Amino acid sequence: MGKYVFGVDIGGMTIKLGLFTTDGELVEKFAIPTNSGEQLLPSAAKAMIDKLTEKGLTTTDLLGVGVGVPGPVNEDGVVLIGVNIGWPEPVAVSDNLSALLDGTAVYVTNDANIAAVGEMWLGAAKGVNSAIMFTLGTGVGGGVIVNGEVINGCNGSGGEIGHLVAITEGGVQCGCGKTGCLETVTSATGIVRMTKELLATSDTSSSLHQVQAIEAKDVFDAAKAGDELALVVVDRVGFYLGLAAANLAATTNPEIFIFGGGVSYAGEILLTAIRKYYVQFAFPSVKETPFVLASLGNDAGIIGGASLATGGLR
Amino acid sequence: MGKYVFGVDIGGMTIKLGLFTTDGELVEKFAIPTNSGEQLLPSAAKAMIDKLTEKGLTTTDLLGVGVGVPGPVNEDGVVLIGVNIGWPEPVAVSDNLSALLDGTAVYVTNDANIAAVGEMWLGAAKGVNSAIMFTLGTGVGGGVIVNGEVINGCNGSGGEIGHLVAITEGGVQCGCGKTGCLETVTSATGIVRMTKELLATSDTSSSLHQVQAIEAKDVFDAAKAGDELALVVVDRVGFYLGLAAANLAATTNPEIFIFGGGVSYAGEILLTAIRKYYVQFAFPSVKETPFVLASLGNDAGIIGGASLATGGLR
Repeated sequence: MGKYVFGVDIGGMTIKLGLFTTDGELVEKFAIPTNSGEQLLPSAAKAMIDKLTEKGLTTTDLLGVGVGVPGPVNEDGVVLIGVNIGWPEPVAVSDNLSALLDGTAVYVTNDANIAAVGEMWLGAAKGVNSAIMFTLGTGVGGGVIVNGEVINGCNGSGGEIGHLVAITEGGVQCGCGKTGCLETVTSATGIVRMTKELLATSDTSSSLHQVQAIEAKDVFDAAKAGDELALVVVDRVGFYLGLAAANLAATTNPEIFIFGGGVSYAGEILLTAIRKYYVQFAFPSVKETPFVLASLGNDAGIIGGASLATGGLR
Repeated sequence: MGKYVFGVDIGGMTIKLGLFTTDGELVEKFAIPTNSGEQLLPSAAKAMIDKLTEKGLTTTDLLGVGVGVPGPVNEDGVVLIGVNIGWPEPVAVSDNLSALLDGTAVYVTNDANIAAVGEMWLGAAKGVNSAIMFTLGTGVGGGVIVNGEVINGCNGSGGEIGHLVAITEGGVQCGCGKTGCLETVTSATGIVRMTKELLATSDTSSSLHQVQAIEAKDVFDAAKAGDELALVVVDRVGFYLGLAAANLAATTNPEIFIFGGGVSYAGEILLTAIRKYYVQFAFPSVKETPFVLASLGNDAGIIGGASLATGGLR
C-alpha cells in the first residue's frame, strides 16, 4: 500500500498540487497553469508523474489522489460542468485521471467541499467529524460534511450554500440565474455592491466616500474604525450569514461552522456580526455551535485533497 | 442470525409496535399505552417479549429493533429529552432497551426521521437513497436522509426542519422558544391560525366564515372549491414550504421530497402550491427534484423502525 498521496486543487488559472505522506506531512507543493478543456487532466497527471520521478517514486507509491474541482460533482466522481475550466460536458474525473495514473484511486469533490475537508483534517476544525464551511470569496461556496462524509448530493448540488435564498423579493441577479442568493449579499462582490448602494442612497457620512475602488476589505477596515455606514453593511452581512447558518444548523446540526475565503480575513468583527443573528435564529439546542475562522488559507484545497485520498474524510 | 425485527414508534399516548421479517413482511402490528417516564422502556420490552412468546419465538430470533422517539437523539442512541413521554433527562434508549432484550441490537432515531426511513424502505420513496421528508401535523417534523443514513446531527437536532426560519421579523411564538419557525405557519395549527387571522382582518368573502371550529382540512377543502381566502392561505403555505425545500435542496440535494402528516392529506393542491415557489427559489440543477406524498400513513414509524433494524437504511 502506497505511503504517499497527492492533493490537487483545480482552479480556473492554476492547478495547485501537493505531495503528502499519508500522515499529512507535506513533501512538496507546486503549481502548474490550467490547460483548460481536454488537456487539463493529462497535464495534471504528467505533473504528478514527473514529481514522483523527481523524488525517486512511482505511482505504486501512491495510496490515492484527491481532487477539488470548480463545479458540481456527483457521487461517482463525475464533474457535471466546469464553466471556468472549459468543460461544457460531464467529465469522469475519477475514472479518467485514475487511468492516467496506472489505476491509482482518485477521489473527486467540489472545490468548496475540499477546502472544508482540509480544515477538518489539519486546520481550524481539526478532529471534528461534522462541519459546515462557508467560503466567502468573489462568490460564496460551501462544504457540508456529516459523519466524516462530504455531502455531494444526488447531482452534485449538495453544499451549494452560496445559493440559499437570502432575499425572497427584489434581490439582485445572481450568476446562477436566480435572484437574492446568499452569494449576492455576502460575497466580496456583494459586500462592495451593497456598500456602494448605501453610499449612493444614505445620508450617513462615511470615510468610504473617499475610497476610489472600494474592496470588501476597505468596508471591514472602516467598520473596525467605527465608520457608521460600514457598520451597517457588516451588520447586514452578519444577518444574512447568521440566518443561513441557523437554518443549516437545524438541517445537519454540525459540530462547528468554519468561515473561510478572502472575506473571512476580516476576522472577529465578521464572526461577531454573524453570531449576533445566529443566536437569534438558531434552534435552542444548537445555539452554542462554535464558529471558527479557516486557518489553512490557500493550502486548504490541496490538504483537503490529500485527506480525501487517505480516506480520512470522504 | 435472527430473521425477525421489531419496529417501534413511541408516541405520547401509545407505543405502536410491528413484528416484521427482515424482508419487510409484516407479521403483526399492535399497540400499547405509553407508560411515560421510567416504565416506558420496560413495558415496551415486555410487550415485545410477550409477542415473541406468543409466536413461538425468542429474542434470539431477532436481528434487531428500530425505535422512533419524540425527541432529539444523538449518534449514540441517547434521547436527550422527551417532553411528551416524561423524560426530562437524557435516556440511553439504545443501551437500556438492548439490555432488556438480551442484548438485541437497538437502533434509535427521532420519530420524524423514522417515518422518512419507512417511506424510503416500503413507501412513496421506495428504492431512493437520499430524501427529505416534511411531516406536517400538529407540529412540523423533518427527516433528512443522505446516502441511506439518517442525519441525526451532533446533538440530535439534525432534520429539525420545523424550526427553519420562515419569518425573520414579527413571526408568532413557536413552542421551541423562537418566533417565526416554519412550524408556526405550515403545521395544521399554524394553518388554522393564519386562516383565522385572515378571516378577521380581510374583506375577502369566504365560506370559512360559516365553519364553527376550523381545521386545516376545512381550509384545503374550501380552497379546492375555489374559496378565495382559502386559496390565499394555501398559497402562503406553499411559499413557506417551497422556500424551505429550495434551501434544503441546495444543502443536501436529495433525490426526492416526501410530504407526510395530516396536512399532506390535502394532496395535489398542496404539492402544486409548494412547487410553484420551489421552482422560483431552487438552484437551477435541483429544480426537477420530484415531490411525492407519503403513502404509509400511521404505519410509517413502525416500518421505518423495522428498516433501521435490518440495517437497510440507518
